Amino acid sequence: MSNRISQLFNIQYPIVSGGMVWCSGSRLASAVSNAGGLGLLGAGSMHYSVLAEHIAKCKAATDKPFGVNVPLLYPEIDKIMHLIVESGVKIVFTSAGNPATWTSFLKEHGITVVHVVSNTKFACKAAEAGVDAIVAEGFEAGGHNGREETTTMALIPHVRKVVDIPLIAAGGIASGQAMLAALALGAEGVQIGSLFAATEESSAHQAFKERIVQAKEGDTMLMMKKTVPVRLLKGAFFELIKEAEARGADANELKEILGKGRAKQGIFDGDMDAGELEIGQVSAVIDAIRPVAEVMTQLIQEFETARESIVHGFR
Amino acid sequence: MSNRISQLFNIQYPIVSGGMVWCSGSRLASAVSNAGGLGLLGAGSMHYSVLAEHIAKCKAATDKPFGVNVPLLYPEIDKIMHLIVESGVKIVFTSAGNPATWTSFLKEHGITVVHVVSNTKFACKAAEAGVDAIVAEGFEAGGHNGREETTTMALIPHVRKVVDIPLIAAGGIASGQAMLAALALGAEGVQIGSLFAATEESSAHQAFKERIVQAKEGDTMLMMKKTVPVRLLKGAFFELIKEAEARGADANELKEILGKGRAKQGIFDGDMDAGELEIGQVSAVIDAIRPVAEVMTQLIQEFETARESIVHGFR
Repeated sequence: MSNRISQLFNIQYPIVSGGMVWCSGSRLASAVSNAGGLGLLGAGSMHYSVLAEHIAKCKAATDKPFGVNVPLLYPEIDKIMHLIVESGVKIVFTSAGNPATWTSFLKEHGITVVHVVSNTKFACKAAEAGVDAIVAEGFEAGGHNGREETTTMALIPHVRKVVDIPLIAAGGIASGQAMLAALALGAEGVQIGSLFAATEESSAHQAFKERIVQAKEGDTMLMMKKTVPVRLLKGAFFELIKEAEARGADANELKEILGKGRAKQGIFDGDMDAGELEIGQVSAVIDAIRPVAEVMTQLIQEFETARESIVHGFR
Repeated sequence: MSNRISQLFNIQYPIVSGGMVWCSGSRLASAVSNAGGLGLLGAGSMHYSVLAEHIAKCKAATDKPFGVNVPLLYPEIDKIMHLIVESGVKIVFTSAGNPATWTSFLKEHGITVVHVVSNTKFACKAAEAGVDAIVAEGFEAGGHNGREETTTMALIPHVRKVVDIPLIAAGGIASGQAMLAALALGAEGVQIGSLFAATEESSAHQAFKERIVQAKEGDTMLMMKKTVPVRLLKGAFFELIKEAEARGADANELKEILGKGRAKQGIFDGDMDAGELEIGQVSAVIDAIRPVAEVMTQLIQEFETARESIVHGFR
């Protein structure tokens, strides 16, 4: 399955596991890399020293390429970027910030840089900043999300039209069929979040994984649009936000309700009531907690079967 | 391009033009049918006598199959259904209502029945009601939309999992690449709205077509979620609704602001300020008003090119 994305990262399958807060530790990242994809560590929920530890553990657990996702608004961003360079990480996905700020620094140190966007404007900015590839993420994705609410189906062909560099699709992808669809739309790889958040190797709390498996259609919604939009799974905290938004609460009040540490409380500590539960729409079709290797095998099999059926006409 | 959908309708390409209010008259429907797709008349914006006229005109303009889209909440639904039977229409798409109410009646009269859904629950209900096929429409689609906000990418594989009957994807489809993606996801045909709304043959006002062409990313949003969710293009009316929703207006106030006849005012009469402008997210990539035949040719060419590239490996 060789294309520009698999070649860029030197991996077998153009499948990236998202660098998700409180899910994407060294166990998940190394398992995905060992299965032929690209595993990412999610630095967004790691203090400096924790990230250093996970990078070391990931190196020990796999000799395959892996990467780190770094939200550019991270408070200790300077320390994080220097740690990444010093610890020999070769691939960095940046998100939530201006791609122009760190791309040159990382590339000067021989690091492959990918930037995550949710619209064509930032896709162009990222390409101008010299990134090696782009992740374009649609409205259906879990967690923080774009203001335009553009879905993967609408976003990918549009981004493909305006930039020529390698393109990874994210949002709504939890099957080989969806992976094939992403490639049909013009992407060359996929970044998968929710499906890996629910694997055995994910750092998330068991209670959160079970909630993903139980989640039904319509159980996630894009909330907090007056501050930073985020896709949340329904629950007690979700209802608090929903009620506040319905009566017209402003950004300040929403931020106050959110407070601090809610994502950790939910995803990592397993508090399904008070916690902020970030997950994608595809949680509705995820029906088991499985090992990464099994998930990867199924993705590839589904992809090949779907491709066969496209090749040999229609059903 | 023979599959269950093209065979069901006896058409060349599994491409349906949506039965859009104030756009889908006999000119558009017959042009799509003449180009090898399935054209639909949009009964939702037609009085009884107007629909009778459009059916007659459509018959005169094409000897190919065409159909009628009927929202089941239509006030004169009895008269409309009997007109359809008496005038020899062979294909009916129903939407916005319970598929169990009219399916048997239509099928007893030898009519092929398709029901439009936005979730798996109604997909199952429609299959149980005995419809011949389903349209599953995602969040990115224009006009009225599902409460779950499930996108096409997430919806189609889920619907495919729960029903076996022929499946048509809608929402976010304005290119052959997206058509191929829909088939990869498990659909067997596509229903396309926005792209046909902007064609020369569409009944929409020229000013509305030009606004579709000008529309940028993020220029449509799903509004009116406290009553009936509808995807609208930004403009003066949109801003009214947005302001009311931001301060927590309830369903009654929103309905009052909406009033009556806003869609006609915008789409058909061309009032870009006071009118309700229903269109999909893909309006962001539609860049010209073109004849239907040209649009259809391009869709097929893009589809074949994208399919070739999927068949012969990756770029």
